[in-house]
Amino acid sequence: MNSFSVTILGSSSALPTSRRFPTSQVVRLDEQLFMIDCGEGAQMQLRKMKFKIGRINHIFISHLHGDHIYGLPGLISSMALYGKKGELHIHAHSDLQQMMEGMMKFMNDLSELKVKYHPLNFRRNSVIYEDKKIKVTSFPLKHRISCCGFHFQELPSDLHLDKQALVRYEIPVSQRLNIKSGADLVLSDGTVIPNSEITIPARPPRSYAFCTDTIFIDEIIPIIEGVDLLYHEATFAADLKDLAKKTFHATSVQAAEIARLAHVKKLLIGHFSSRYKDVTPLVIEARTIFPETYAANDGDCIEL
Amino acid sequence: MNSFSVTILGSSSALPTSRRFPTSQVVRLDEQLFMIDCGEGAQMQLRKMKFKIGRINHIFISHLHGDHIYGLPGLISSMALYGKKGELHIHAHSDLQQMMEGMMKFMNDLSELKVKYHPLNFRRNSVIYEDKKIKVTSFPLKHRISCCGFHFQELPSDLHLDKQALVRYEIPVSQRLNIKSGADLVLSDGTVIPNSEITIPARPPRSYAFCTDTIFIDEIIPIIEGVDLLYHEATFAADLKDLAKKTFHATSVQAAEIARLAHVKKLLIGHFSSRYKDVTPLVIEARTIFPETYAANDGDCIEL
Repeated sequence: MNSFSVTILGSSSALPTSRRFPTSQVVRLDEQLFMIDCGEGAQMQLRKMKFKIGRINHIFISHLHGDHIYGLPGLISSMALYGKKGELHIHAHSDLQQMMEGMMKFMNDLSELKVKYHPLNFRRNSVIYEDKKIKVTSFPLKHRISCCGFHFQELPSDLHLDKQALVRYEIPVSQRLNIKSGADLVLSDGTVIPNSEITIPARPPRSYAFCTDTIFIDEIIPIIEGVDLLYHEATFAADLKDLAKKTFHATSVQAAEIARLAHVKKLLIGHFSSRYKDVTPLVIEARTIFPETYAANDGDCIEL
Repeated sequence: MNSFSVTILGSSSALPTSRRFPTSQVVRLDEQLFMIDCGEGAQMQLRKMKFKIGRINHIFISHLHGDHIYGLPGLISSMALYGKKGELHIHAHSDLQQMMEGMMKFMNDLSELKVKYHPLNFRRNSVIYEDKKIKVTSFPLKHRISCCGFHFQELPSDLHLDKQALVRYEIPVSQRLNIKSGADLVLSDGTVIPNSEITIPARPPRSYAFCTDTIFIDEIIPIIEGVDLLYHEATFAADLKDLAKKTFHATSVQAAEIARLAHVKKLLIGHFSSRYKDVTPLVIEARTIFPETYAANDGDCIEL
C-alpha cells in the first residue's frame, strides 16, 4: 500500500512556544509532498524532519494571518538556493502575492523557480488540485479574515482482477485495463459477465481534512464527512468558549463536536493558545464527546 | 560589575541547518536588550533562551538579505500580541520599511506599538545610538548589497573616589560628583589637588564588534581596534577563498587576519555555510593566525 501521511511542522497559534512552531503541515502521498500553511520556521522544521523541500510543488495557504505565512519568504529563498527548478504553486488569497513582493525584493536568483499564485475561492467549495492519485478541495471556514479549509481525497485505485475469473473466462489482455476501470466482460457469444463477478474491490480511498482557523461551523460537515483524519483547531479549552467566539476560534469541545457530527475516524486538535503548557486537559474534555481525539505535536507523523 | 553579554540566536548563512538558525544576536547590557539582525525563527530562539522580547527597543539590521530580516514580521507581531507599548526602533537600510509593509498588512493591532525606522549610513561610520551606558556605531562593510557592521562601546564609568583621600582632604559632598567625573579638588586655601591623586580609575569600558556579511576589508580595522570580542563572518574555509570572494563573503583565515591586525581580545566566527556539518576545521585554521578564535553556536552566551 502506498504511503499517505500528515506531518505536523507546527501546532501553536499566533504566539509560538519553546515546543510549538506556528501552523504548518506536510501531506505526503508516496513521493509527492503537499504543504499546508507555512508559519515562521517551517523550513527549519522541514529540514529537521528530513523532508526534501525541492519535492514540494504545491502550498495551500488557509488565510493570510502572519502565523500561517511568515515562513514563505525563507522557504522559497531556500528552494531557490537548493536549485529547485520549474514551478511552485501557491494557492492562497489573491492578496498574498502583493504581500510577498517586498520580502522577495533581494531574494536570490528566482529565474529558474517560477512562483505561481492561484487565488482561492472563499465562498464555495472548489477543487483546487487534482491528479491521478489525489484531489484537493478548498472549502470556506469562518474566521476574522477570509479563510479556507482543505480536503485531501485519495482517488479510487483500479479494481483488481480476480485470478480465478482470469483463468475461467480466459480474459484477453486487451480487455483487462477496461475491466480494472469497471467495465463488464463480454464473451465471444455475447454473454455479459458483470464486473463485480470478475474483480475484487480496491482498498477504499483515504482522506484528510484540515480546518484552521475557524469558529465552530456545521456547514463544513458534508465535505469532511467520514474522513480518516480531521485536523481541527482547538485554540482554547471549553471554559474559554466566549473568548473563542470573540476571536473567531474554536474550543476543544467544539472540535470534538464537529468530528462526532461528521463521523470522522480520528480527530487531531491543534493551533493551541500559548497559555497551555500542557494540552492534555483539552484532549480529555474533547474525548468526552469524541473518544478518538489526539493532540497534534510538532514532529508527529500520522499515517492514514 | 554589570553584565555585558552577546547571545547567539542564529549562526548559519543563508540556508539554515538542523542546528543553526539564520543570523541573529542579542547584546545585553544589564537590563537593556539590543538585537542585531533578525533571521527567520529569531523569536523562537529568544523564547527558548528565555529573553523577554518586550525589553528589546532597538534592532540593528546589517543588510536586507532574507536570512538577516525574515524573522522581523513574526517578532513584531508577537511583541504586539504580548502587549508591548511605546516605540520599537529599527535601524536599517531605508528600503526595509517598504519591504515590511506587505507582511504587516494583517498584523495584529499595532496601535500601541509604534515601529520607527531609522536609515543607516552605508558610506561612513555613524553613531546610531547613545545613552549613559553605551554607544552604538555603524560602519560600512563590503557585500553584494549595502551592509553595515556594528560597534558596541560601553561608556566609561565614573571614577571611584579614593577613600583615604576622602578622609585626608575632608572632601565636601558638593564636590564629589564633579571629582568622580574628572575634576580636580580645590582646597579652601586655593591649593589644587590633581584628580588622579584622589580617585581610582574605573574599570576599562568593554566593547563588541559585529561584522557580517562582508569580504575581507582592512578599512574596518580602526573602528574595531582592540575590542573585547569581534564576531566576524567565516562563511567558508580557507580553501574556498575564491568562492568567498565571488559571493562577497570571508573565509575563517581572513576573519582571523582581521582579528590579528585589529588586536582584538577574542574572535568569534560564524555565518557558516550549510556545507560544514562540523566547523572545527575552520576554527583550527583560524587559530594558526589568531589563537583566541572560537566558533559561534546557537545558544552561546559570551560575557564580555
